[in-house]
Amino acid sequence: MEKKEISAKYFFYPMPATLVGANVRGKPNYLTVAYCGMVNANPPFISVSLNKQHYTNPGIKENKTFSVNIPSADMAKITDYCGLVSGSKVDKSKLFDTFYGRLKTAPMIKECPLNLECKLLQSLELPLDEVFIGEIVAAYSEEQYLTDGRPDIKKIKPIVFSTNDKNYWKIGELIGQAWNIGKNFKPKHIGKNFKPKHIGKNFKPKHIGKNFKPKQ
Amino acid sequence: MEKKEISAKYFFYPMPATLVGANVRGKPNYLTVAYCGMVNANPPFISVSLNKQHYTNPGIKENKTFSVNIPSADMAKITDYCGLVSGSKVDKSKLFDTFYGRLKTAPMIKECPLNLECKLLQSLELPLDEVFIGEIVAAYSEEQYLTDGRPDIKKIKPIVFSTNDKNYWKIGELIGQAWNIGKNFKPKHIGKNFKPKHIGKNFKPKHIGKNFKPKQ
Repeated sequence: MEKKEISAKYFFYPMPATLVGANVRGKPNYLTVAYCGMVNANPPFISVSLNKQHYTNPGIKENKTFSVNIPSADMAKITDYCGLVSGSKVDKSKLFDTFYGRLKTAPMIKECPLNLECKLLQSLELPLDEVFIGEIVAAYSEEQYLTDGRPDIKKIKPIVFSTNDKNYWKIGELIGQAWNIGKNFKPKHIGKNFKPKHIGKNFKPKHIGKNFKPKQ
Repeated sequence: MEKKEISAKYFFYPMPATLVGANVRGKPNYLTVAYCGMVNANPPFISVSLNKQHYTNPGIKENKTFSVNIPSADMAKITDYCGLVSGSKVDKSKLFDTFYGRLKTAPMIKECPLNLECKLLQSLELPLDEVFIGEIVAAYSEEQYLTDGRPDIKKIKPIVFSTNDKNYWKIGELIGQAWNIGKNFKPKHIGKNFKPKHIGKNFKPKHIGKNFKPKQ
């Protein structure tokens, strides 16, 4: 079938559904956010992009802290609700049990299986949105969502969001393991002596982060 | 159950699995990327974060263009393969049928159900990674992946990536519609006269983008 140009909208799949927390005017506020993802592996930096008109933004700037809370599929209704109503009109501080961690001012949702506590490093102004880049200083969970001390996606049951059709989805069937299933892939166009297993084994990323001083 | 601090790793769920394309040394190259997401709604800006050591980065900087290709679940092996082997050691230009669009220098993968053609606007240096923010100037797909002219997640079948356990997943069961299922949510702590349906109807975001001049 022929490729055709469709348009230049934000046709990106799949997206996460998260609840971004910040103290605004001294109270916890939680906003549903799909424009959120990792931007640096180590130290772990996360990016959250919010429409400039959101009630949350001044709170992040004031405290220089925020949280990214991962709701489970059974929290889909309340997650959607937090995206329907603005903190400027509705007090969302009592929707959840809030707890605080190391940074003291990043409110986190006890009911969410996973919470990422973030220190604001940098913000970036785009036409409609504002990008907040934060360092994840700590993560919080409960024993029931962990396997060998680490978060387990099958226990967390995060929500996938799809744009355009505007739907929330569960995580489905396991396809296979990353950095693994490709090892058996035999590219037709590349020589038969190619051994992907041996490539990259000695790759050691330099630790660049030591003297890194992000803008405050 | 009690919340406990687990660590400050990149425990973010769910993540996408994309193939980022760029011309490097005059040839198309494709890299598997999970650190990718939308950062501005209109115009549509996308962010791609790549380890500084990747072969792809100089190509993006040179051409000021790149692509984000959304592979379907049945392309998981070749997607994983593109993350296992570096373009510096293996020529990945012939793995796929490459096509070009408006920008002429952003190679895109014909086999991927959805292709986002991007013009580099800005880059941001972080300790380990480099963030490339691009405007999606056009999107491409095939009739078989569209419903009413728009991409359909059930036809595209994008791949969800999970960190730590390092797995690829299919999209699962539909939970419900965004900006909708929350309307029936009745918060216990908020007054019973609260009507979420009527909030935000008159919200009109200003068109801020007109005079926006991103750094090149």
